Amino acid sequence: MAKDGITPRAKDYSQWYLDIVREADLADYAEVVRGCIVFKPTGYAIWESIQAGLDSRIKESGHVNAYFPLLIPKSFLTKEAEHVEGFAPEVAEVTRAGGEELTEPYVIRPTSETIIGYFYAKWVRSYRDLPVLINQWANVMRWEMRTRPFLRTAEFLWQEGHTVHATEVEAEAETLMILDDVYADFIEKEMALPVLRGLKTDSEKFPGALRTYCVEAMMQDGRALQAGTSHNLGQNFAKAFDISFTDQANTVQFAWTTSWGVSTRLIGALIMAHSDDDGLIVPPRLAPIQVIVVPIYKNDAEKALVMDAVKRITTGWKGTIRFKIDEREHLTAGFKFNEWEVKGVPVRIEVGPKDVEKGSVALARRDIPGRDGKSFVPQDGLTERVVSLLAEIQDALYQRALTFRAEHTRTVTSYDELKAAIETGFAVCWWDGDTADEKRIKEETRATVRCIPNDQPGGTGTCIYTGRPATKTVVFARSY
Amino acid sequence: MAKDGITPRAKDYSQWYLDIVREADLADYAEVVRGCIVFKPTGYAIWESIQAGLDSRIKESGHVNAYFPLLIPKSFLTKEAEHVEGFAPEVAEVTRAGGEELTEPYVIRPTSETIIGYFYAKWVRSYRDLPVLINQWANVMRWEMRTRPFLRTAEFLWQEGHTVHATEVEAEAETLMILDDVYADFIEKEMALPVLRGLKTDSEKFPGALRTYCVEAMMQDGRALQAGTSHNLGQNFAKAFDISFTDQANTVQFAWTTSWGVSTRLIGALIMAHSDDDGLIVPPRLAPIQVIVVPIYKNDAEKALVMDAVKRITTGWKGTIRFKIDEREHLTAGFKFNEWEVKGVPVRIEVGPKDVEKGSVALARRDIPGRDGKSFVPQDGLTERVVSLLAEIQDALYQRALTFRAEHTRTVTSYDELKAAIETGFAVCWWDGDTADEKRIKEETRATVRCIPNDQPGGTGTCIYTGRPATKTVVFARSY
Repeated sequence: MAKDGITPRAKDYSQWYLDIVREADLADYAEVVRGCIVFKPTGYAIWESIQAGLDSRIKESGHVNAYFPLLIPKSFLTKEAEHVEGFAPEVAEVTRAGGEELTEPYVIRPTSETIIGYFYAKWVRSYRDLPVLINQWANVMRWEMRTRPFLRTAEFLWQEGHTVHATEVEAEAETLMILDDVYADFIEKEMALPVLRGLKTDSEKFPGALRTYCVEAMMQDGRALQAGTSHNLGQNFAKAFDISFTDQANTVQFAWTTSWGVSTRLIGALIMAHSDDDGLIVPPRLAPIQVIVVPIYKNDAEKALVMDAVKRITTGWKGTIRFKIDEREHLTAGFKFNEWEVKGVPVRIEVGPKDVEKGSVALARRDIPGRDGKSFVPQDGLTERVVSLLAEIQDALYQRALTFRAEHTRTVTSYDELKAAIETGFAVCWWDGDTADEKRIKEETRATVRCIPNDQPGGTGTCIYTGRPATKTVVFARSY
Repeated sequence: MAKDGITPRAKDYSQWYLDIVREADLADYAEVVRGCIVFKPTGYAIWESIQAGLDSRIKESGHVNAYFPLLIPKSFLTKEAEHVEGFAPEVAEVTRAGGEELTEPYVIRPTSETIIGYFYAKWVRSYRDLPVLINQWANVMRWEMRTRPFLRTAEFLWQEGHTVHATEVEAEAETLMILDDVYADFIEKEMALPVLRGLKTDSEKFPGALRTYCVEAMMQDGRALQAGTSHNLGQNFAKAFDISFTDQANTVQFAWTTSWGVSTRLIGALIMAHSDDDGLIVPPRLAPIQVIVVPIYKNDAEKALVMDAVKRITTGWKGTIRFKIDEREHLTAGFKFNEWEVKGVPVRIEVGPKDVEKGSVALARRDIPGRDGKSFVPQDGLTERVVSLLAEIQDALYQRALTFRAEHTRTVTSYDELKAAIETGFAVCWWDGDTADEKRIKEETRATVRCIPNDQPGGTGTCIYTGRPATKTVVFARSY
């Protein structure tokens, strides 16, 4: 039974998504600014949690943050041939400023390889200056034709790492380390969302990259969502911007660079991976509010009794559990239950006069709706119980997503099987096709190669499409 | 004796500032993007500390973060008469996007009252929706003619709070609460910088505000720096954007709004308030690195001995002291001392073979240069000693800035005295002048009324300029 205002997933998954965004108060459409959204407080708080989890991993792996200009001279884009082809059609241009026409327009950064490359060329002189390991948290803009809250918006928020290395081996190691230790680790442990790690085929790689690696997650409709990318840029941008250094043998060499990013798109992934027909579900480790405490009373005497118990049981929670006591006076308990359910708070604690009498509280899990997720537990030892319950929920969400993915992933050995498999999930198959083959399959099925998984079975097989011997398997799916 | 590359303050304060920015590696000029800078990692890390300290205060006082679009329809600016006059001349305009001319240009936000006002008008319906207490961390752009790193740049980073209230009293209380409990508290406690809190005169208030309050700090050349502003916007923006609500008596009323912001300008204030001819000085509570540990050795045997001691003495520091061990191999100890001095790290610990032998370390305070700031202390109890030393340095920097301000503030009773006083600092005087008087004084002395302090002596006096009876005192100074 779905909530008022939320279309059931089974009826219309796409509308369900938009309903969750609206009902959980995550975003508003900025209809006056084409393709943009407002990240409302509930939505932005999730982004802050994502930022915190990523930022600590980015720093622990030796990177520092910096901030580069929003505007990029338009001519910079043209310095790397593939890059300009990829991004020029979708930039917003500043042509007037301070009341005057500019002689050269600027573009609002769609990504910052070019402007950062310009500075790295100034900063890098010697092998002693390497590696450069810098990350930036920023807004970027891509004038997309079709937009969808969080998943695809003209302006979005992200982090973009940009590093410089002396050798190809170091650049490749960085690219993969970010994919594994930062992105996959964060998304799996904090977002409770299993990801495939793999390489993009040429048709899906970043414009200007040598190789693009990605993490791909499965949504509840079986479609894939690219959750993050890590690019080995080779020497392409180093040559375009002259990022060179004197090596230990006193020879001047071009450097090797990488870039990698994840964006507010992850909020979309979070919604589509875990939420249900009752609203949003946020994994405990990411939840801005992990526990909502709802006091229940009918009169001042009951209120005094209940609030006293509420204060007592939450004593010492600060710093351990992120909680909120919903003390709003003009709303019913039922209204409050509903609101926090729709907003995805992992655990609800109800305290009424009878609970006070019995020395217990009612504990409701957001991930298990209805009676099955509700229990009555003693106030004694509640803190420990809540802490372990939060860990339990985190694990349950991950396992559920993992099981769902396993159930919706099929190893296929013919094109017909592939066509059937991608109707409900991922198709894994041997592959020896080229870009033209991928294009035809996309036209026929709307599915694309999501990645060539880093984890390969080894050996050889028969390509699903060309029938030729193949040395690698790929994952096909429809995607967001 | 100043460091290589740093002009002494006494010789040229303005050049000294630029030298510190460069030598401490805080920023780079983005000459290809007019008036913009790159916030380099050392500079950006200070901004991250500032963000953390402000964000926690903003949240503890009941606000939540959100994010609104970068672009604003140009027509929005014109809806508030004073606002358009103040900002229209300095905006950057987006006129093309996605390869096409736009029918209505957008401006890059110079500040967000208008675009946020538009959304608040949609969101606020009833008195139950109030107050709205939202803050945004964002980049903004003002096409300034003369720029200076951190102090005035075309693009800068800031937070901007935007709140909506049912009554004028509540809006005024919010405006003052932010000034006192968020801005002054943060700047004094974390940045170790005393501030005056007061009201701006009409000529210096925010375009569109009813009243602008500010915190003003004194730099080492006696000039004032506006460190933050908090505006009671009255009903001006509510009327321009139709932010109205149904009150408890079922009457529709315009709301009262406020806005308040501090920016990366604070990094400039930090530099100019505390630093010396040897480089940057960062107060311990704000310092990304509070303690730099420099191991000193000549050979592998000494290295093993020294590093063993270094690991031992820093055990357990994580989470208590923000420290770094400078293990770089190709640099001399002297080079390292100099680098961390220039970058302003509050405490340096040196550990050499003799220190290991004696069970001691050398401890150097950045705020007291040379021998006077250096002591040799036992390794036993070092953690406690360092923690208390950091607090001591924090306090010493604040007291030094407070004493400096007291010594450079004069109560003046004639215009001639005022002219003399503002050559070296602040002039406090009775004031009954108008905007035209202020303008003449500015032309003659380059000094302006920095604020009408909230803390007034009471009673009446004689206006320094008009000779009329005056009921308030003001502070005149030259400013950044």
